[in-house]
Amino acid sequence: MFPKNTWYVACTPDEIADKPLGRQICGEKIVFYRAGDGKVAALEDFCPHRGAPLSLGFVRDGDLVCGYHGLQMGCDGKTVAMPGQRVRGFPCIRSYAVEERYGFIWIWPGDKELADPALIHHLEWAVSPEWAYGGGLYHINCEYRLMIDNLMDLTHETYVHSTSIGQKEIDEAPVSTRTEGDTVITSRFMENISAPPFWAMALRANGLPDDQPVDRWQICHFTPPSHVLIEVGVALAGKGGYHAAPEFKASSIVVDFITPETDTSHWYFWGMARNFRPGDPELTVQIREGQGKIFGEDREMLERQQRNLLEHPQRKLLMLNIDAGGVQSRRVLDRLMMQEREAEQARQATRIA
Amino acid sequence: MFPKNTWYVACTPDEIADKPLGRQICGEKIVFYRAGDGKVAALEDFCPHRGAPLSLGFVRDGDLVCGYHGLQMGCDGKTVAMPGQRVRGFPCIRSYAVEERYGFIWIWPGDKELADPALIHHLEWAVSPEWAYGGGLYHINCEYRLMIDNLMDLTHETYVHSTSIGQKEIDEAPVSTRTEGDTVITSRFMENISAPPFWAMALRANGLPDDQPVDRWQICHFTPPSHVLIEVGVALAGKGGYHAAPEFKASSIVVDFITPETDTSHWYFWGMARNFRPGDPELTVQIREGQGKIFGEDREMLERQQRNLLEHPQRKLLMLNIDAGGVQSRRVLDRLMMQEREAEQARQATRIA
Amino acid sequence: MFPKNTWYVACTPDEIADKPLGRQICGEKIVFYRAGDGKVAALEDFCPHRGAPLSLGFVRDGDLVCGYHGLQMGCDGKTVAMPGQRVRGFPCIRSYAVEERYGFIWIWPGDKELADPALIHHLEWAVSPEWAYGGGLYHINCEYRLMIDNLMDLTHETYVHSTSIGQKEIDEAPVSTRTEGDTVITSRFMENISAPPFWAMALRANGLPDDQPVDRWQICHFTPPSHVLIEVGVALAGKGGYHAAPEFKASSIVVDFITPETDTSHWYFWGMARNFRPGDPELTVQIREGQGKIFGEDREMLERQQRNLLEHPQRKLLMLNIDAGGVQSRRVLDRLMMQEREAEQARQATRIA
Repeated sequence: MFPKNTWYVACTPDEIADKPLGRQICGEKIVFYRAGDGKVAALEDFCPHRGAPLSLGFVRDGDLVCGYHGLQMGCDGKTVAMPGQRVRGFPCIRSYAVEERYGFIWIWPGDKELADPALIHHLEWAVSPEWAYGGGLYHINCEYRLMIDNLMDLTHETYVHSTSIGQKEIDEAPVSTRTEGDTVITSRFMENISAPPFWAMALRANGLPDDQPVDRWQICHFTPPSHVLIEVGVALAGKGGYHAAPEFKASSIVVDFITPETDTSHWYFWGMARNFRPGDPELTVQIREGQGKIFGEDREMLERQQRNLLEHPQRKLLMLNIDAGGVQSRRVLDRLMMQEREAEQARQATRIA
Repeated sequence: MFPKNTWYVACTPDEIADKPLGRQICGEKIVFYRAGDGKVAALEDFCPHRGAPLSLGFVRDGDLVCGYHGLQMGCDGKTVAMPGQRVRGFPCIRSYAVEERYGFIWIWPGDKELADPALIHHLEWAVSPEWAYGGGLYHINCEYRLMIDNLMDLTHETYVHSTSIGQKEIDEAPVSTRTEGDTVITSRFMENISAPPFWAMALRANGLPDDQPVDRWQICHFTPPSHVLIEVGVALAGKGGYHAAPEFKASSIVVDFITPETDTSHWYFWGMARNFRPGDPELTVQIREGQGKIFGEDREMLERQQRNLLEHPQRKLLMLNIDAGGVQSRRVLDRLMMQEREAEQARQATRIA
Repeated sequence: MFPKNTWYVACTPDEIADKPLGRQICGEKIVFYRAGDGKVAALEDFCPHRGAPLSLGFVRDGDLVCGYHGLQMGCDGKTVAMPGQRVRGFPCIRSYAVEERYGFIWIWPGDKELADPALIHHLEWAVSPEWAYGGGLYHINCEYRLMIDNLMDLTHETYVHSTSIGQKEIDEAPVSTRTEGDTVITSRFMENISAPPFWAMALRANGLPDDQPVDRWQICHFTPPSHVLIEVGVALAGKGGYHAAPEFKASSIVVDFITPETDTSHWYFWGMARNFRPGDPELTVQIREGQGKIFGEDREMLERQQRNLLEHPQRKLLMLNIDAGGVQSRRVLDRLMMQEREAEQARQATRIA
């Protein structure tokens, strides 16, 4: 239940720095590695010789070498060589479209012919020197859409993250949700409140007082297939809130790339891009640690929610105004999956005709 | 394969002292908590908002608050409130009849309308100052009836508990089993034998010599759905055995409440009620530790027996005289389950007509 | 997918020295123990009384006593006695043909009537004082034939065991495979190469220089059902290789007994028999440790290969010349399984007629 002809974050460059990485994405078992020209390659993780996982092998002269009997695989899925063998007749394995951009490796798990790198979203914070980024990866045993729901309804912060970013006013402030094309935007503005611990820290890091009333905002942007970027921040109260001048505020972008593994599990790439003190790596580490702890708090809730839902597949859940972000994101996904199926049927019809 | 319109032990008060408890009983996932008036409540562990387990939440002003988005649930399964929402139209979740009595929380996992607290067995040892009780809880991966079998045939003590309460004479003494209504009683009397280690300790704790011949008894009482209370004790030989005057004996009741979790697992509440030195809490601790070790010895046997039986569903097991207690207990259960099915069919027929 | 009317290694004597051993072999759950006359016995691991695993019991006077309620089982699967019971009518459990020979316990998991101890392969190294043996046991989650493939194609050493016994020349040397009756033999000879670390050690242990060119050989012998004995060794270059005089070479036999547990797992008895310094137990320990590490390297590859194959049951794997040993071994096994089925059908037809 996920679109496949689209770009997902597959991994980060450090994960393939020393050796190939085997990772299941959208149900496909894939090996990622850096080929000879430094370009990232992605292949089916299945050696055509005897079915060994290629991810247990190594890279030599840009070719992926099977760690079992030494078959050398090219990044197009064709066997290049094998000791003592003629390989011309060997069957191909599948290769995937893959791109390295913005500090991530992106995979198009569907039809390679349709993959267009221009479709990868532009991430200004990833290329601008005015921004710094830090993040991590969690494996979560729930379907990716439960994580989208989670991130498009931040009232959960009041409960799940009560000691760090949650506060009563999130619950109380009205939320507004709108859809622009395939993008869903949910916003909440809170005025004249006290800064919760995380933002008190960010104010101090910005050289601002942490004991004064602030205006706080959360603007969640869902873009398909499963990216949720959340503009978050606080400004000293009465200075314009979201639109306040930089010297009065601390703000950042919560970055969430949510990559399906199976129908009931996903890879959660989380992080924060900030445009204050971008040259301070210690602050990056500090934020990363705090954020890692916060996002860890969601895991048990999401995984047990998933189990509850699997046991009660017939139950209809409520769709409240606070759920509108998730509900509308799912509608976008449903439309994309429908389009994908129709396009596939059209291609098959053409082939037959 | 268990009756549902009956009272089971669900948990002990300490398990819900600080926060709600999620526990599966008779296939139902239930959250237990203490509501505002101090009364215990039990609800389906499923938030009607998005399916999160309510047991990850907390209690505020007597209402159970979902830990995901703050929905407040009343003990009748109706949503009381939710931040920023009108909740009148929210669907109900199931609530269960639950009672706190004798130091345990009792649950009626079936039809709440039929639950009558008067049906909970009277436990004299739990209310009399002449008795003291200590016990614990084990989760066992076998169906609850294998545990009933275990406790209604104590010849296993000779083998499974050979170093504590087992002795050759248990095997050798004849056993008699009778059924009185829904109660099954299995008794064994051994005369002029030496006291095994556990009872030697109890004699000493009672101020009696531990090196003299004793008469020993074991009287197992099964009452539905799955309570096994075992009168056990030793008296100095020739003083009347079970009927000996208190100054010549040490006796107690082994308490076993066996609560099905699934068809192949159960919660085992074990303990001992004694009527000697009831005011000695150190003795309670000592007995509890010894008993916990003994009952832990049954676990591997029962769990592996369960696996063997699951792999050979067609095999008929032997029903020897020593098995009569378990066999007759199962007959009582079969009759109760049949009655339950018939009553349910009658209710449905009435509804249709 | 394994023959059952054949001898497999079940365990080693030390595994049944103190108490019975429960082990699943070819899908059968079996308890092994040493009966009264010191002879090994093997029975179904299922007590006819209540289905408890007999392997949790103990041996008394040569009978296996169930650890649950004391039923005494004879090595023919007939109940001998039970406290307070007449056992004549008790159902039998299955007994298996079992033999102790060459330092192993051998089991015939199929029809006991057909079991002929003379069919156990003669193992000269196990009875001659000129040889010493050391080995171990691994449980591997892949079907037994993947392990046969592994051992009949040693080109994997170059990749999986690159730091111990692997070297480039294995890949490069041609391999020849032939079948003699039910035996499959795959040989490879490498001339004038340097000795890899393991063989350098063996040369030193043999009092030979470890820095001179050697001739190396590997001769794999598959015999049904799943024994792979590999003659391996090095001789100083030009001294005759495999046929060199003893003072110029170090050689041994890699011993592999591969016993199916289920369709997707097996017990792997590995070891090495050597005919140099047989009286040096420290060398035995040293070799055993090195070999244990080497065979541990295969496990992840084999288990993940198994998972890949289970996920792609329709894929045809390549059968290269290097795979000929495994391919021909599988043919022998297919023929034996076919014969087993036909013989069974013939016996059944006879019974009906």
